[in-house]
Amino acid sequence: MDPLSFNAAMLKTAHYTLKARGHDVRISDLYEMGFDPVTRPGDFKAPKDPDHIRYDIEQRHAVAHRGLADEIDSELEKLLWCDCLILQFPFYWFGLPAILKGWVDRVFVNGIVYGGGKWYDRGGLSGKRTMLAFSTGCYPTMCGPDGINGDMDVILWPIQNGILRFSGMQVLPPHIAYSVAYRTDQQRRELLEEYAARLGAIEADKPLEFHHRDDFTAEWRLKPGIKPVAVGQRSPGDSGG
Amino acid sequence: MDPLSFNAAMLKTAHYTLKARGHDVRISDLYEMGFDPVTRPGDFKAPKDPDHIRYDIEQRHAVAHRGLADEIDSELEKLLWCDCLILQFPFYWFGLPAILKGWVDRVFVNGIVYGGGKWYDRGGLSGKRTMLAFSTGCYPTMCGPDGINGDMDVILWPIQNGILRFSGMQVLPPHIAYSVAYRTDQQRRELLEEYAARLGAIEADKPLEFHHRDDFTAEWRLKPGIKPVAVGQRSPGDSGG
Repeated sequence: MDPLSFNAAMLKTAHYTLKARGHDVRISDLYEMGFDPVTRPGDFKAPKDPDHIRYDIEQRHAVAHRGLADEIDSELEKLLWCDCLILQFPFYWFGLPAILKGWVDRVFVNGIVYGGGKWYDRGGLSGKRTMLAFSTGCYPTMCGPDGINGDMDVILWPIQNGILRFSGMQVLPPHIAYSVAYRTDQQRRELLEEYAARLGAIEADKPLEFHHRDDFTAEWRLKPGIKPVAVGQRSPGDSGG
Repeated sequence: MDPLSFNAAMLKTAHYTLKARGHDVRISDLYEMGFDPVTRPGDFKAPKDPDHIRYDIEQRHAVAHRGLADEIDSELEKLLWCDCLILQFPFYWFGLPAILKGWVDRVFVNGIVYGGGKWYDRGGLSGKRTMLAFSTGCYPTMCGPDGINGDMDVILWPIQNGILRFSGMQVLPPHIAYSVAYRTDQQRRELLEEYAARLGAIEADKPLEFHHRDDFTAEWRLKPGIKPVAVGQRSPGDSGG
């Protein structure tokens, strides 16, 4: 990571604030580590079927036989260690930068993080909390419910529900530093102070609401009479929009 | 790409079908190319500010001075050449695999694809059409409006609106091969036939509906009285859910 970047300042702010509150902090600076985000056959030391790698099946096999590549294994160990996972990044094309998306693709392994009945409430990371923290060039009104980019809750749905909640974690509201590129130095300092204040009270933060697995039928549709609580689901009768 | 994978079969199907209909087809097989999805200072031959790379600013500078790395330049040339961009991939964690996300991060450059007033209706790729085509382990009911994973239109919003529509393209409905891992060989052949049939009629396909820029105020909020047409936006009074 560029040490002069706003994200480097966010990372320092988070590290300092959390340490000062007595938390143990472990950092994976993916750029610094030279982390490779691409899923490859080499991710498995002794693949079950080297001629036809089906990634999730190989993950399960590798988990059972201690055969994950070292780079994955050490990141997985950190993931399982933490009480609270903060994914901090610059927002790239309304999502995770590739290097971070690939960290999820490779480290959130079938057999531990999910799979075999482990998903949502019963995901492998149940009991942990998590939060997205990111900078963006957007202005807040662009990402409001009636904004041109769409509601930020909708934009984040595949990450917050599809990755984080799917794995079992409690998802805290995101911390977003808006329109960073258009701010003065003084305003950027204020953004960092806001981030520190947020992290300083993170233990008391209330997670976002998602449905429980028991709210769904055997076909994984909302049971009749259950009112949708999150932006991803609508009642069958709703018109959308 | 693993030549035995279902995605390899989808690619072959698309290539054959589109050629047979007289289309010129150019393929970027990112795995085959060894494409690096990570944004790096080396993406710019003569950076404006080598000590503090701000990626989008460097993109704009490189565009103006023919300074994009060759690997980006050649992909950009293909992107600008095509009439219709098909992104085909296995769905990883409810989004693009890292290698494809990074192709967007690096190739959709500021100054050509977007930026300087070029976004949405007036994006740099206006006049082109595009479609997502992907395989997933999910069952369709899980991704319906009341499904446990949330509505597929919501899941795809950041890609379809935030990447493809943002760049100016007309976005065709996605082509999704559901629950591929749980199918028989015969069923997989049928899925490929469905894909061929879809592509065989792609010229007549109707794009998804998104708002026009003129539907928004100077603060980029929906003008009063404009009813939302896509899943990303709600009227200020709507309750969500």
